[in-house]
Amino acid sequence: MSETVTRIEIDGAALLDRLRRLGEIGALEGGGVCRLALTDADKAGRDWLVGEMRALGMAVSIDMIGNIWGVRAGAEEGPPVMLGSHIDSVATGGLYDGALGVLAGLEIAAALERAGLRTRWPLAVAAFTNEEGARFAPDMMGSGVHQGALSLDAMLSVVGVDGAVLGDELRRIGYAGDIPPRSLTPRAYLELHIEQGPVLEQAGARIGVVTGVQGISWTEVIFEGQSNHAGTTPIALRRDAGLAAARLAVEARAIADEAGPPQVATVGAIALSPGLVNVVAERATMTVDLRHTDDAALEAAEARLAEAAAVIAAAEGCRVKLRSLARFAPVAFDPALVDAVEAAARARGLFCRRMPSGAGHDAQMFAPNCPTAMVFVPSVGGLSHNVAEHTEPEDLIAGAQVALDVVLPLLEPLP
Amino acid sequence: MSETVTRIEIDGAALLDRLRRLGEIGALEGGGVCRLALTDADKAGRDWLVGEMRALGMAVSIDMIGNIWGVRAGAEEGPPVMLGSHIDSVATGGLYDGALGVLAGLEIAAALERAGLRTRWPLAVAAFTNEEGARFAPDMMGSGVHQGALSLDAMLSVVGVDGAVLGDELRRIGYAGDIPPRSLTPRAYLELHIEQGPVLEQAGARIGVVTGVQGISWTEVIFEGQSNHAGTTPIALRRDAGLAAARLAVEARAIADEAGPPQVATVGAIALSPGLVNVVAERATMTVDLRHTDDAALEAAEARLAEAAAVIAAAEGCRVKLRSLARFAPVAFDPALVDAVEAAARARGLFCRRMPSGAGHDAQMFAPNCPTAMVFVPSVGGLSHNVAEHTEPEDLIAGAQVALDVVLPLLEPLP
Repeated sequence: MSETVTRIEIDGAALLDRLRRLGEIGALEGGGVCRLALTDADKAGRDWLVGEMRALGMAVSIDMIGNIWGVRAGAEEGPPVMLGSHIDSVATGGLYDGALGVLAGLEIAAALERAGLRTRWPLAVAAFTNEEGARFAPDMMGSGVHQGALSLDAMLSVVGVDGAVLGDELRRIGYAGDIPPRSLTPRAYLELHIEQGPVLEQAGARIGVVTGVQGISWTEVIFEGQSNHAGTTPIALRRDAGLAAARLAVEARAIADEAGPPQVATVGAIALSPGLVNVVAERATMTVDLRHTDDAALEAAEARLAEAAAVIAAAEGCRVKLRSLARFAPVAFDPALVDAVEAAARARGLFCRRMPSGAGHDAQMFAPNCPTAMVFVPSVGGLSHNVAEHTEPEDLIAGAQVALDVVLPLLEPLP
Repeated sequence: MSETVTRIEIDGAALLDRLRRLGEIGALEGGGVCRLALTDADKAGRDWLVGEMRALGMAVSIDMIGNIWGVRAGAEEGPPVMLGSHIDSVATGGLYDGALGVLAGLEIAAALERAGLRTRWPLAVAAFTNEEGARFAPDMMGSGVHQGALSLDAMLSVVGVDGAVLGDELRRIGYAGDIPPRSLTPRAYLELHIEQGPVLEQAGARIGVVTGVQGISWTEVIFEGQSNHAGTTPIALRRDAGLAAARLAVEARAIADEAGPPQVATVGAIALSPGLVNVVAERATMTVDLRHTDDAALEAAEARLAEAAAVIAAAEGCRVKLRSLARFAPVAFDPALVDAVEAAARARGLFCRRMPSGAGHDAQMFAPNCPTAMVFVPSVGGLSHNVAEHTEPEDLIAGAQVALDVVLPLLEPLP
């Protein structure tokens, strides 16, 4: 790493202006955006982004899954330092989820240009296809294919919630590129993103130093008991699937409480059948979302959940079936790069806090393959995937500044 | 009461044959019936019933809410002894729920005819409109209007789940009669019904001596918390409406367990919003069904539920609203008539058991106005409101025999 102590400043107004302009593409009445992956709105956002990259003198490439990257050349060829995120959104998304990371990358490239700074290594700014997974599952698709975690052919065949085939839509909007997967592993990967949670705001911190991404375990639990008349069936003779589900939901919270942070557990869906006021439920279908930064701890939580489900089912005379809906191991970011984020924030006098990411991000696809880290900025009220999502302008700018300060030495500025 | 010790026998085959024939009207493929109130199938059942009454020489009357009754004259005019129930069904009903009480009444009238027995008082056999409430709410409508607990005009205006207006449907099927409500209070009312629960089967009893009807309290509980990302929101910062609902469902069972029988508590419906695996629920809507034979005990259970809801909501940072959906005070049947049912069962060598009814029945509308009781026969597996509902033929016949034995002295047979 270079010993250069070059300092370059972000043009905050330029960053905010680009965020505003991208936010006009797919804008919803009353606020927020809808740029579902590979729709016309996504295409318009992509076209605008490519235009901005070219205006900054960057060389633009499109790969076979539609990822876009613009490269500011270095003095030497070779792996770039990459800043990236995504510009697709959920159906009722905010202006900064994803867009901030991409447009901060553009502003960093612009700042280097303005400073007339040459660097040893190239700077790449990437926008990954379909991070949200709102139209086509799974999420983090473009970065997953890019880094070899997902199969290109399988992803091109994915059918969206609207019946469209992903590969067809890529061609339709003109973003089926020719660069194969795994053709580019950056020297390092840094992603700036809104937190999408309340931790920074609650802590009064302006920068989140992201240490990794929590492991995620989604389980569907189905209890099967017996439908009975709520008036005529004594308690002792019941096999109440709804009660079993309620007990397991309470137990899921106990798992989180007893393990303590960062263990979280959420029962977001419970459906009882037949679902009538005066009928004991015959069947209960519920989901349990468990997350932890440590895989052994996550496995322990999963084991305890399964054990609790079995005990609860037996006590209520129900059958129980568990099915894994999703399982991602925790990702740890590069300790040196994480330290660099923290040091950069402190050097700018920004109160920061180390934290894991509770949500998935493109960065986790890079973590196994190159030094990777993330920078979070606060989400007002913790709101996310919501048109009311908001981050204060000074925090957007501060995040971009920290990102620039972190990547600058990695780029190795030349005198 | 007469000292006559006349004994008359039910013709079991005739009873079963009538049950079979009514069961063919509105029959579902694979078993069970659908005779929702005031549909064409209900009309066909009514027409058949009226024909059977007339064939037995009974005088048929229809009142303004469509109740049908056939009267076998007594030596004196004056209030009849009434046997009744209903012939409407839920959408996937069994053959005996309601039909048994009406057709046992017919068979009792037929048995008196066969025996050539004259009685001092008339015998009335009634089929009440819309006992089930499956198409038009509330349930027990015909008997409720008949006995003055419900307003005729209000009930005629009720709009069904299919948009039909009850009064229009009554006219359409030709059962808008001209006899006003409260025109007939019987000398005594007895209703034979299937148990619709597992108590008799579990006890090995063949006759249920019904002491009254449990009080019913239905409450809708809505918890409002905050929708949050399941990964990014620490447990300590959550306001999880789904967890609050689960805790209250567990507490409802605890209320029943701690009070002991006959207290029952059921959470048959829970709906979480937005209901997604990775989103903390913002809103939970649930129902709680509490029943007890003692009104003070039921009030205590309601108070404890409300208190628990408030405590749980406060602990989770949620708001909570409770709304009463239905409230019926417990009904106690006439002690002398209840004793008579027990004595009749014992005299026939039928093992019997005293029990409250957990379900509502037309009989409860009569209980405030005349001596009233019920006879239950076992439901195999406790199944009810189910095409697989079943009662063994010998139990159907035994129930009818007990009903005959109970009403015979009330009718005061003449020598």
